Amino acid sequence: MTKIMAVNAGSSSLKFQLFSMPEETVLVSGVVERIGFEDAYFTIKVNGEKNKSVLPIKDHKQAVEMLLAALIDYKIVASLDEIKGVGHRVVNGGDLFPESTKVEGDVITRLETINDLAPLHNPPAIVGYRAFASALPESGHVLVFDTSFYVNMPEVSYIYPVPYEWYTDYSVRKYGAHGTNHKFIAKEARNILNLGEDAKIITCHIGNGASISAIRGDKCIDTSMGLTPLAGVMMGTRSGDIDPAVIKYICEQTGKSVAEVTNDLNKKSGLLGVSGISSDSRDVENAANEGNKRAILAQDLQVKTILDYIGSYYVRLGGCDAIVFSAGLGENNIAMRETICEKLTDALGVVLDKERNNVRGETRVISADESKVKVMIIPANEELVIARDTTRLLDL
Amino acid sequence: MTKIMAVNAGSSSLKFQLFSMPEETVLVSGVVERIGFEDAYFTIKVNGEKNKSVLPIKDHKQAVEMLLAALIDYKIVASLDEIKGVGHRVVNGGDLFPESTKVEGDVITRLETINDLAPLHNPPAIVGYRAFASALPESGHVLVFDTSFYVNMPEVSYIYPVPYEWYTDYSVRKYGAHGTNHKFIAKEARNILNLGEDAKIITCHIGNGASISAIRGDKCIDTSMGLTPLAGVMMGTRSGDIDPAVIKYICEQTGKSVAEVTNDLNKKSGLLGVSGISSDSRDVENAANEGNKRAILAQDLQVKTILDYIGSYYVRLGGCDAIVFSAGLGENNIAMRETICEKLTDALGVVLDKERNNVRGETRVISADESKVKVMIIPANEELVIARDTTRLLDL
Repeated sequence: MTKIMAVNAGSSSLKFQLFSMPEETVLVSGVVERIGFEDAYFTIKVNGEKNKSVLPIKDHKQAVEMLLAALIDYKIVASLDEIKGVGHRVVNGGDLFPESTKVEGDVITRLETINDLAPLHNPPAIVGYRAFASALPESGHVLVFDTSFYVNMPEVSYIYPVPYEWYTDYSVRKYGAHGTNHKFIAKEARNILNLGEDAKIITCHIGNGASISAIRGDKCIDTSMGLTPLAGVMMGTRSGDIDPAVIKYICEQTGKSVAEVTNDLNKKSGLLGVSGISSDSRDVENAANEGNKRAILAQDLQVKTILDYIGSYYVRLGGCDAIVFSAGLGENNIAMRETICEKLTDALGVVLDKERNNVRGETRVISADESKVKVMIIPANEELVIARDTTRLLDL
Repeated sequence: MTKIMAVNAGSSSLKFQLFSMPEETVLVSGVVERIGFEDAYFTIKVNGEKNKSVLPIKDHKQAVEMLLAALIDYKIVASLDEIKGVGHRVVNGGDLFPESTKVEGDVITRLETINDLAPLHNPPAIVGYRAFASALPESGHVLVFDTSFYVNMPEVSYIYPVPYEWYTDYSVRKYGAHGTNHKFIAKEARNILNLGEDAKIITCHIGNGASISAIRGDKCIDTSMGLTPLAGVMMGTRSGDIDPAVIKYICEQTGKSVAEVTNDLNKKSGLLGVSGISSDSRDVENAANEGNKRAILAQDLQVKTILDYIGSYYVRLGGCDAIVFSAGLGENNIAMRETICEKLTDALGVVLDKERNNVRGETRVISADESKVKVMIIPANEELVIARDTTRLLDL
């Protein structure tokens, strides 16, 4: 039995789960939020019980020391050297990191050279790594990249139809997102459905952020996220794909800068922008049920953009064995899954079993037995993949 | 027998065809280019013979007077009052013009209010109209809009997942392009293939500009072009859809303005940008055949983006009765059609007949008899639609 910590560090937050491997059981999980504030939150969940405290936490280093101290207080570990490995989620590994990577040599220096690719996400991950490396100097550390799953997609999937020099000079390509989960749920689906090594799977990670991937066997063929997480399907606050000329047009009409308009596309669009109500699909669903037309339109539009990608990937894969729903909406939005599946019936022969679909957050086949394409829910579990990769790369 | 002129006026050019209706025969066609220059071109084609002259032409008014004089010189008409109607192509009619419209009352004034939607294309069309209206004051004039076919698409197809106010305040929506031809070829396909009124047709207008439409019966359900003709599939020099955040990123990396980067996406992307060779698919094909990797990539990428839309629209329509290719590449690029059809075999059951496909610019069914989806070539003929609408609206 080995204890492995999976960490997801943001600019002012730090999520963690401590696993016992190889059993893959979660010993403790928690999150530190509002790091840098006098009233930061520290939430820890032990044996199903959640404890939340409000206290000043000045930086990630202090956050890490505090959570490690809590592990001893709660008697999760007797000594910190029981934690043999720490796996760190990194949003973008660029072309440099096609696989999860053990931290050694110049790994962190190389990672820092691509901060521009994810300026809001990569630097905090490095800060988080340094805080843990300082507190647990004897542990092994591993970086797990959201983008690894996409590095080796076919060139035709990651090159944009733009001046080629934008790729060679500025690294403009499709990097994808949520790759750790797409890889995980595709593998789970292959196992559960007993599909061959060449299985054709379309994975739908639909949370507040959302992406869809086309997967053949264990290889990703294409994905909806792009250079940044703005691309692809419509999301909670993000537009997804639009005519790129909209930006110049809105700049001219409003006098806004390209940064401001891009911010509007990231923060004020999607469900929020269309409905005018909320980025939370539950709020939009409630309004739609009361007949609010823009809420109904927002829901319809989100479903449409998801269907567009499923259609593209059905052709791309030359058919489809299984469609998998995951993440917040994918796992919990029963009505959305039903609408999507009904709209896939005529073209793809998808048949939903409404009883089976009447569930939230459980691994389950929800298609009817006669469905030509199997449909599943598989809850997202990026932390488990991080713990697995960490265990594997550290030979634990 | 009535003589009807179909006109397509650009900023420095003016294309025309004179039809005899209702026989739909072309009496004469031609083009004036480099209007405003000392060495403008005037090309006229009569009885299959082309005559080209170089001369100074100061404006559209002079161009129109010259071409009308030529009609008398060539004895196409004995008197200009034989031309009973003139139909004018207009790129964007906004929400204001859901149908071809006879010029009367405040029609031109209303059209001028939406010049912002197509600043490079609509104003020259109005200049062209005025030149003809002045030279042929007794003729009826009709405006035929590329966008009419798209005005009544479902809301979910034309609203973008952006702040809704961009639609209400700035008219940001999907306007589509090439609508006159999409409508024409879908109708031709229904007639030739004897399809019902509810036929599901995917029309591929693939020229230097390119768009794909999903059509049900005589109604357009969705189309790939957007607010502007930059959106959708990859084109000769245009990127089509990309992560909209690429613009801000390239602005920051290069110091270019949003207008410059958008110009790069319009003028230096697509086949030209990826291949680094040419925007002309024949040049790219030659280079690809010699093994040039970027030329091969450019071709593959163009095919991929077309397949992506076909897949989306296959799901959107709930299946597909026919796929129609039209315009420059669609009519003439035999290899491209073959590649697309082969990549549709596994998912959609498309089977190409290679012998039938070995043709350029002819109306023809090119799928094999056993193909689940019929595939056709139908040459673009926007001028004929303009002549038909003009005849109809003027009760001629």
